[in-house]
Amino acid sequence: MNPDITRERQNASFDVEKLTYILDGGPEKTKRRRQIEALVFSDPDFNEDDPNFLSRSERYDQAVRKSAQMILKLREYGIADPEEIYHYKSMVKGNQQEPFGLHVVMFIPSLRRLCDPQQAKKWLPLADSFQVLGTYAQTEMGHGTHLRGLETTATYDPATQEFVLNSPTVSSIKWWPGGLGKTSNHAIVLAQLYSLGNCHGLHAFIVPIRDMTTHQPLPGIVVGDIGPKFGFNEVDNGFLKLENVRIPRENMMMKYSKVEPDGTYVKPPSSKLTYGTMVFVRSMIVGESARALSKSCTIAIRYSAVRHQSEIRPGEPEPQILDYQTQQYKLFPLLSMAYAFTFVGQYMTEIYHRISEDINQGDFNQLPELHALSAGLKAFTTWETNSAIEVCRMSCGGHGYSRSSALPDIYVEFTPTCTYEGENTVMMLQTARYLVKSYRQAEKGQQLSGIVSYLNESQNRRVQPQAVASRRPLVDINDLSSLVEVYQQRAATLVEMAAKSIQQELQRRKSQEDAWNNSAIDLVRASDAHCHYVVVKVFNDKLKGVGDTAIHSVLSTLALLYAMHGITKNSGDFLQAGLVSVPQVLQISVRIKELLSQLRPNAVALVDAFDVHDKKLNSVLGRYDGNVYENMFEWARRSPLNAAEVHESFQKYLKPLRSKL
Amino acid sequence: MNPDITRERQNASFDVEKLTYILDGGPEKTKRRRQIEALVFSDPDFNEDDPNFLSRSERYDQAVRKSAQMILKLREYGIADPEEIYHYKSMVKGNQQEPFGLHVVMFIPSLRRLCDPQQAKKWLPLADSFQVLGTYAQTEMGHGTHLRGLETTATYDPATQEFVLNSPTVSSIKWWPGGLGKTSNHAIVLAQLYSLGNCHGLHAFIVPIRDMTTHQPLPGIVVGDIGPKFGFNEVDNGFLKLENVRIPRENMMMKYSKVEPDGTYVKPPSSKLTYGTMVFVRSMIVGESARALSKSCTIAIRYSAVRHQSEIRPGEPEPQILDYQTQQYKLFPLLSMAYAFTFVGQYMTEIYHRISEDINQGDFNQLPELHALSAGLKAFTTWETNSAIEVCRMSCGGHGYSRSSALPDIYVEFTPTCTYEGENTVMMLQTARYLVKSYRQAEKGQQLSGIVSYLNESQNRRVQPQAVASRRPLVDINDLSSLVEVYQQRAATLVEMAAKSIQQELQRRKSQEDAWNNSAIDLVRASDAHCHYVVVKVFNDKLKGVGDTAIHSVLSTLALLYAMHGITKNSGDFLQAGLVSVPQVLQISVRIKELLSQLRPNAVALVDAFDVHDKKLNSVLGRYDGNVYENMFEWARRSPLNAAEVHESFQKYLKPLRSKL
Repeated sequence: MNPDITRERQNASFDVEKLTYILDGGPEKTKRRRQIEALVFSDPDFNEDDPNFLSRSERYDQAVRKSAQMILKLREYGIADPEEIYHYKSMVKGNQQEPFGLHVVMFIPSLRRLCDPQQAKKWLPLADSFQVLGTYAQTEMGHGTHLRGLETTATYDPATQEFVLNSPTVSSIKWWPGGLGKTSNHAIVLAQLYSLGNCHGLHAFIVPIRDMTTHQPLPGIVVGDIGPKFGFNEVDNGFLKLENVRIPRENMMMKYSKVEPDGTYVKPPSSKLTYGTMVFVRSMIVGESARALSKSCTIAIRYSAVRHQSEIRPGEPEPQILDYQTQQYKLFPLLSMAYAFTFVGQYMTEIYHRISEDINQGDFNQLPELHALSAGLKAFTTWETNSAIEVCRMSCGGHGYSRSSALPDIYVEFTPTCTYEGENTVMMLQTARYLVKSYRQAEKGQQLSGIVSYLNESQNRRVQPQAVASRRPLVDINDLSSLVEVYQQRAATLVEMAAKSIQQELQRRKSQEDAWNNSAIDLVRASDAHCHYVVVKVFNDKLKGVGDTAIHSVLSTLALLYAMHGITKNSGDFLQAGLVSVPQVLQISVRIKELLSQLRPNAVALVDAFDVHDKKLNSVLGRYDGNVYENMFEWARRSPLNAAEVHESFQKYLKPLRSKL
Repeated sequence: MNPDITRERQNASFDVEKLTYILDGGPEKTKRRRQIEALVFSDPDFNEDDPNFLSRSERYDQAVRKSAQMILKLREYGIADPEEIYHYKSMVKGNQQEPFGLHVVMFIPSLRRLCDPQQAKKWLPLADSFQVLGTYAQTEMGHGTHLRGLETTATYDPATQEFVLNSPTVSSIKWWPGGLGKTSNHAIVLAQLYSLGNCHGLHAFIVPIRDMTTHQPLPGIVVGDIGPKFGFNEVDNGFLKLENVRIPRENMMMKYSKVEPDGTYVKPPSSKLTYGTMVFVRSMIVGESARALSKSCTIAIRYSAVRHQSEIRPGEPEPQILDYQTQQYKLFPLLSMAYAFTFVGQYMTEIYHRISEDINQGDFNQLPELHALSAGLKAFTTWETNSAIEVCRMSCGGHGYSRSSALPDIYVEFTPTCTYEGENTVMMLQTARYLVKSYRQAEKGQQLSGIVSYLNESQNRRVQPQAVASRRPLVDINDLSSLVEVYQQRAATLVEMAAKSIQQELQRRKSQEDAWNNSAIDLVRASDAHCHYVVVKVFNDKLKGVGDTAIHSVLSTLALLYAMHGITKNSGDFLQAGLVSVPQVLQISVRIKELLSQLRPNAVALVDAFDVHDKKLNSVLGRYDGNVYENMFEWARRSPLNAAEVHESFQKYLKPLRSKL
């Protein structure tokens, strides 16, 4: 054990284990998680080469092997609880992805959701036994977010009772679905349904794409991998071009809408249920943000505790880089963010489950709020985390660029969350739509409830920036509840400003749609402020339930740092709305420095509490024992370019070059 | 040619070619650059596979081949002017690096700088003929910025008249030098010199590391590649462990200091010349920022002109995504930044050459200012560009993640500039040291000249935030010169605040060093504001020299957008210092929207003016002809995972899995 990191742990003011329980949701959860993780790291079948040493094809190969093993082992151990499966998989995957992901996360759930009973009876056993390996093919090369724009067609032929599927243009080629390129033999294809000369819009079809025995592509199917990406090397994101592909009528997924044998189209009863999956996945992504950020902070903070560099006082030994105020200022606000997002992730899971029960009982009242919240928080937390991972990486100096640090992997595997499952700007605008709608309702005198209820009050104090700026602010900057209030009022102000911008555009005779587009900057800003408020609020609420005094104290410091740092970073907003005064902004800057000093002795303990096992972290810089340099040297020597002492390019190019000069 | 992009070009209000001349520095320069670029793209010897389709070893191999060819061709064509060599190399390299980089950029110049005449006569011909292939080994695994901390030792043995070099610890292993792992047969090694029992500090030694005939590592040399990184796949950044390696006394680089045969150490005359190289390299990096950002904007803006998505007005065709206000707000400020940094790059080159002449004539007066400026602007432009590339990538939706977009490559090849040649936070603090020193001089009544002369005035109006906030600001927000003034005053305020923070710490009986560290956040902020001011000022100055009315008009719009966007992003600073009022901040937000609309018809033309050849851009999204989708499909089909229709993992893992379930 590195002596620096041992000393750090001795200096902690709280019991790390107890904080881990809070993060896991209780000691029993921690215990069970560790049991499951131990199943993986003690299993020789999961020993492997660092994927960074392998070619793309070898990486894919290794990942398929691991996924197949994982399926067998989960059944062998009888692990079936989704949370437990998640822990097992996280441990196997490390910082990489798995090629079968969509079979389990999208294909099987879609079969359950969209098949009528007869179809379910046919397809589910095939999928559960991996005879059928499937994916979900929605996005096309030229079309993403806007589903009505999809071009793939499925035309019903009553003569043979078949659908004929086509990709009529290059831009209609299905593009991006995970596991589509090489792994899957079936795909749920979203296509515009034509029958008897009419278009009935987007419907889902089960399309066999590869022979189930030979795995060769079927006639009319052009399928393959979309090529190397920024990360996701383990996944064969694929393309699919359909050329007069015929499938039986029964392969249209008929739970809600149908095509009769004669071609008659039967409409679906209206349904809000499809909403649910999106909300669930987006809520999950909030948790993913927290985990990616926790890993990154663990690496950067442990490394900063063992790395010595330069000098603060001349003549003294090089200090730990964690002693530099600039390093603390880079990392501790991110550490506080990791805690904040962890609690927001828990909060999202809780309300998702609560509202799911309401929905099961036919009560859809709270769905729009949850939808808006999950969209906005997905965007807010992924954007923040995305930048934060890179700050962590760069805070490690040169070694952060080495793949051995794991930070490049964490970044490239995480960054797609900003785009998939709803592009972030689009998400922010969806949340803004809900906020503006709520604002208008409040304006009309309707009493709002739930998370937007603060918009009721904003009606009582019309925003008049000039007057407000000179108003005496009453906030107590050292009181977290008071800061929550300030964030709330900032959100209210910005929602009001966005709503007013739309109104002004309308007064200039713009159409509703153009008024919306011409206010989009303000709308995104309003959503951002709303989400920021929710995060600060949830962190504050969480503190109320923490009984342990030492832990309460350190978490309060983190929460205060999170809130104050957000104010300094957006001080213009708060000053503009007259919510804090200029002297208060200066006081906050001074207080932040004090909070950094207070957190310094607990920094390593606070990342230890995330309890990310070394095998899962897979980072030489973030090792629990702090023995960074020996292990980096050992890792480098195993690197494939070192397999031969003399690279063949010497004989091929360098030696001949000399004689030619 | 894609009709959307043709229409965009028809809508431009200015002559693109003329703007290219301004960016290149004159029509003759543009012509010559194009001639040189044409030499490469018409040369079949440089046809190659997309490096993203190759393994690490293949990438290295291909890069060595190209580097060797490049050397021969440059000699063949007689291209010797550094700028022309730069153009040729940029075209060959595309978005990648070259493994020989350090031989030319560091090894040979160091030989010139540090060898005495006899040594130069021996080594330079060997290096010029590539018999000796060298690198510059300074950084160690445990030591970067702080040179005094380096641990490698060179101990003189008078008995044999040799130096004995050692890496006494794991952390002393040389780590990171480019070309060290596999390519070089010599290295300039920086080591602590010991002679007759005394340590004389860091000195440079020429160390043979591989046999010049067999290329095998020499006895006592442990050398290799440091393993995969985030980018720089073409470069064999290496490690070097020295185990009692003996080199003749004559291999110490003796231009300035010497060790006599008997071991007597002869001190160097003090020299400021070493300063020069760092300043030059950092000035170059400012230009690299501009180029990376120009490429990224070219890709994102062209793609946004051909990509159609969603709807603004219901029922109408999907609009170009460049019509969304949010997309304009993401990209146009970055476009203005690309122009700003291009002009700052030109400015740095000009003053570097001007001051170099002064130095050659023995006048070192302006060197400290240039040093501070190059350090700060290196940090400012690389940090800004680093984030900006990622915004460009994410503005392309899913396709930005594809390696075919080139944006991932541009990012990973660029991001190390934030760390190498002076870690950015350290750079900002160096600039701050100069600013605070200048401030103190002004405080003492000394009249400052040059770029910091604004600190003279700040002494006349002591910063009193509260009073200032209520002062009536006099800025005309639509006048760029007025905004330059505002940026200047913001910088003055923040320099003053940082200086006062140090003073306050000293009054609390902190040592000078602790006071500095405890004010580091404020110091970085002050440097940032200073650099921001310089950029706005240089942009404004540049406009004065633009004669063409149409070009002057569009560049003025860009400059205004750059300045205004910076104010909204940092509005807290400007409000706090009372430099703009709350209503003005709101007016600026409205004006920014107007500027976005004004720039919209010229956006494609403005990136066309960067004149980045398709072969150099290597991006399917950024193609000049806008034919994105067909080419993306073609690229994907060439991807190596598609070499076989059925990947071997099907037979190995997927088929067996079924039978086991």
